[in-house]
Formats: sequence, structure tokens, C-alpha cells
Amino acid sequence: MHIMIIGAAGMVGTKLTQRLVADGALGGKTIDRLTLVDVNEPAAPSGIPATCMAADLTTAGVSDRLAGLRADVIFHLAAIVSGEAEADFDKGYLINLDGTRFLFESIRQEGLRESYCPRVVFTSSIAVFGAPFPDKISDTFHNTPQTSYGTQKAICELLLADYSRRGFFDGIGIRLPTINVRPGKPNKAASGFFSNILREPLSGQPAVLPVADTVRHWHASPRSAVEFLLHAATLDTAPLGQRRTLNLPGLSATVAEQIEALRRVAGQKAVDLIKVEPDDTITRIVAGWPQNFDPQRAIELGFRAESSFDEIIQIHIDDELGGKLP
Amino acid sequence: MHIMIIGAAGMVGTKLTQRLVADGALGGKTIDRLTLVDVNEPAAPSGIPATCMAADLTTAGVSDRLAGLRADVIFHLAAIVSGEAEADFDKGYLINLDGTRFLFESIRQEGLRESYCPRVVFTSSIAVFGAPFPDKISDTFHNTPQTSYGTQKAICELLLADYSRRGFFDGIGIRLPTINVRPGKPNKAASGFFSNILREPLSGQPAVLPVADTVRHWHASPRSAVEFLLHAATLDTAPLGQRRTLNLPGLSATVAEQIEALRRVAGQKAVDLIKVEPDDTITRIVAGWPQNFDPQRAIELGFRAESSFDEIIQIHIDDELGGKLP
Repeated sequence: MHIMIIGAAGMVGTKLTQRLVADGALGGKTIDRLTLVDVNEPAAPSGIPATCMAADLTTAGVSDRLAGLRADVIFHLAAIVSGEAEADFDKGYLINLDGTRFLFESIRQEGLRESYCPRVVFTSSIAVFGAPFPDKISDTFHNTPQTSYGTQKAICELLLADYSRRGFFDGIGIRLPTINVRPGKPNKAASGFFSNILREPLSGQPAVLPVADTVRHWHASPRSAVEFLLHAATLDTAPLGQRRTLNLPGLSATVAEQIEALRRVAGQKAVDLIKVEPDDTITRIVAGWPQNFDPQRAIELGFRAESSFDEIIQIHIDDELGGKLP
Repeated sequence: MHIMIIGAAGMVGTKLTQRLVADGALGGKTIDRLTLVDVNEPAAPSGIPATCMAADLTTAGVSDRLAGLRADVIFHLAAIVSGEAEADFDKGYLINLDGTRFLFESIRQEGLRESYCPRVVFTSSIAVFGAPFPDKISDTFHNTPQTSYGTQKAICELLLADYSRRGFFDGIGIRLPTINVRPGKPNKAASGFFSNILREPLSGQPAVLPVADTVRHWHASPRSAVEFLLHAATLDTAPLGQRRTLNLPGLSATVAEQIEALRRVAGQKAVDLIKVEPDDTITRIVAGWPQNFDPQRAIELGFRAESSFDEIIQIHIDDELGGKLP
């Protein structure tokens, strides 16, 4: 089986690659080839023959070349993030909308040349939703994004569904919760603090909390993100019908609940490293974000996420900190 | 005030033009110029200076030229219909998606050159919805189109909202009910019979009913369609927030209720002209269509439609048959 990951050098792409290499198989089929694509050439894994390439879907000919490789499963994770898509309107539409549409269309054209219908797994986002919200967002709640990024993701979901309905590929979209604990350095994403207030204190470093601790949000671990992708790549898509994109399970928790879990796992000294510095801009942005979901369809289809922040923190300790606190 | 209608030669565009010319004003402001655009040159109305042009939004330079005319209000009605968009995948996306995006982008570019923020009224469709449905589709029900046409309309709605949020224009989308009684000759649209079974017998002609008379659907008259457009062009868009497209009011009625209204207005001899010829294909297509809505937001914003099929039939008699049955 040949698997392609577009956006393979990102955090989720890297973890997905590691997992595929460790498993050596997907859905019971041996993986005999990986194609790893990103704007910066992804590192070559060992253990499975891999083609690594630096390529941008919006460069002429790239999407045709990728589709021409006829992978059995294509994970399309590539996107520019919310903040960048908001700051640069043209670039956001070019990368996040046109890039995806080029890929979908190249797959269709490849299939018109010779029968081809790969599984396409597309990572969407809860940014397709915009306030005001019900207490829990249901599987039939409308998409009213409040960012250009969310708009682009919502449009790609519609294209994914139509191309799948037409039989051009077998697509599935997954709206990832906010990934927590996100490894690496603090970044300037408005959502960064959700991870920062756990990751930094767990390593003895200070972190800033810019919102009230009553803020509620929707989380899943990086490990769950990889599990979501593997499950999306292998499940029977027939029960999806024409509703090809799913709200995924996650954990709805307040910042206070995050902090209590941190206290239980790492003690008061870790909690003391969190400095409260209210930021009106971030508070306003976060107020427009989803807080809770009722993802019945995804649960029925076998998707699972964490049920406590203790568990999410432990996954970070196991996967990023070698199993113990420093 | 300068008003542009793109898609001015179609049924709704023609009636809208006639109404604007008859009123001579929109929202209390005198109309001093009309620009009427369609792929076939629209007929020039008398009474208001009008520029009529044959133009296609997907031809290079056309959208820039139209935006450069800096109309105060742009009605964008142009589209290819559902059946054609389904039969010709490329043409559907080109005309219905790219054409609209070109227009939106040209307006943005015009505004970047010199401040410009026209009202843009976009006609969307209840084809953005796909079964299974609740009894009444609420204002927050998700878009899961089951046709490429519905997909294209849903995508344009998302673009409309994002371009409006960014301040590139002041957009409003309206999801028109099925227009009934649609004047003219019977056509091959799957929805054609809803009008055929009234219009033809009202003129002494036979008509075919291809579905069970229990089929329920969502209707409004051509006169309401024009009223919707005028109201959308003039209402205060501030209460829309970032939810720029509305489900409109309409009349939910079964085919049997249509036929009973026909009997009351035109007698049994008219009803006898309806020949029942079940068609499995049409029955299957229609089963995926919306039947009823709860369009609270549009009603609160002042949109109104008919409340009985007697009224819808009378409008047809008044507007198309000179006020009396032949």
C-alpha cells in the first residue's frame, strides 16, 4: 500500500509518519511506500521506502504530479494557519482553497485517464463554526466561520463532499479539536495558551494565561489526532453517505479544569508558574470559538478521544518528556 | 443610484428589471442608471437610462469591467441551473463558482484602488440543503448539498460572508424557495412539474404529474422573488452579523394542496387536465429536497411570502394572464 502525506513536515504530519512507520501497516495492509510532501522537504523515515519532496500544491504541475503517483491513501494536512490566512487574504485563499482544489481536481483528472479512486483524508477545523453557539454543537449545526481560514476549510469540505459524491475519490473530512498539549515552543497563535499553560510548567518554565479561567474549549491530544487520521483512512465510508465531514470527539474543559489537572499531576509548584496577564484581543477572539460538541456520528463510527485532562497531560509526559517529569 | 443586474435576461432578472423601472427608485433613492448583464444581451427597458451588455463573468476582464462601473447595488442572479451543473461538472464550477468568485474579487480589487463597498445581493438556493431533514429546517441547519449546483451555491455563500466580514462589499444571500407559478413553457428541470400542473391547466393545456400528490415542497411566487430581492437590497445588514445568507419565507404545501387550490380557482375541468404519470427518477430526486422551513430570521427582518396556493395562483392570473382565466 502506498500512502501520501501532504503537509508531512508539520506537527501532526510528523507524528502520523512516525506512527505509520512504527506500525508498518494500515488497516491490515502492509505499507510498502510513503510519499512525504511539504513546502520544506520532510525528513526521510527509516524502515519504509519513502520519497520526500519539497513541493507546494499551488505551483504549476505539482498537484498533477502528486495525483500521478496514484497513492492508495492521501492525507491532506497542508494549510497555512488561521492567523496567517487572516493577515494575508490572497495567500490564505491561494494555499488553503486553491491548493486543495488543485489537488482534488488533479485526482479527478488522473481518474479520467485511468480508473483511480483513492481514500482522501482532509483535516478540517472547528473554525468552520462561529458564535453564537448552542451549549453543545450538534452534528447538524451550520458552518458560519468568522475567519478566512474557517471559510476556506468549510469550502474545501463542500468540495470534498461533491468530489466524493461524484466518485472522483473516497473522501473524508475530520474537524480536529484544538490539539493539546501541543509540543514545541510557545507560538503566537491565539490558541497557543491552552497548551502553553501545561507544557511550559511541566518543564519548569513560566507561562502566560491571557484569558479568564472560566473559558471553555474543545481539546484532544496529538496522539488522538493521529488515531483520528488512521481511523479516517481505514473506516468504511458508506455510512457517511453524502455527509463526508465529521465533528470529532474531544474533551470539553475550562482553563480552571486544565489547571486543576496540572496541579494533580505536577503539583502546586507547576501551577505557580502560570502568570495571569489578561489580553483583551485574545479574550475577544476566543469568545467566538466553540466550547463543546455532541459528536454522535463520529462516536458511532468509532472515533475516540480523551476523557480527562489528567489523561491528556499524561500523554504529553509519555510521548514528549520520556515518561517522567523533569 | 446605479443598479447592476447580472443575469438580467432570466425570468427573475426580467421581472426585477420591470419592477425597478416601474418604481423608478429603490429604498427611496431615484434610480438614474441601470446596467443589465447576461450572456445574451438583455432587452433595454424604457424609462431609465440602461446599459445592456452580453457578457460572461468567466471571460477574462469581464468581472473587472463590471466592478469598474461602480454600481451602488449589484444583483448577482447569474447561474447555470442544477441539471446542467450536474451534467457538466467543469461548466458548473466555472460558471457558478469561479464566475461568482471573479466578481467578488474584482469588487475587492476595485475597492483597493478607490474606496468602494456596494450592496451585493446574491441569489442562493434551498439546494444547499440535503436530506435527511427535520420536519422544519431551522436557520441553523447545516448545508449538505446533494448536487454540484447546491455545492457551488453553498461555497459562494461562504465567500459572500467572508468578503462582507472583511468589508470588501456589503453582501446578502437569499435562498429562494422554488418559484411557483413559473411562467413560460414547461422545461425539463426536475422541479418543473410543480409549476406545470398549475400553469398549463390554467391555460387549458394538459400537464403531467410525475410524483405522488403527497410530495411536500417549499414555494413562493415570482412576485415574492422580486420583493425578496428589493428588500435584500435595501434592508439594514447590521442585524445579519456574520450570517449573511438567509432562508426565506415560503409556503410549504403538498401537491394535493396545490391541486385543491387549482380546483377552487379554476374548477374540476382544470384539475382534469393533470395526468398522473409516475416517474421514478424524478420521484427519487424530489425525495432529497427540502419540504418545510422555519425561517425566523428572515421573517424578523421583514421578508414575506404567500400564505396559500390560492394566492399564488391568483398572482399568476394577475401578472401573466391579464387578470382572468382564458
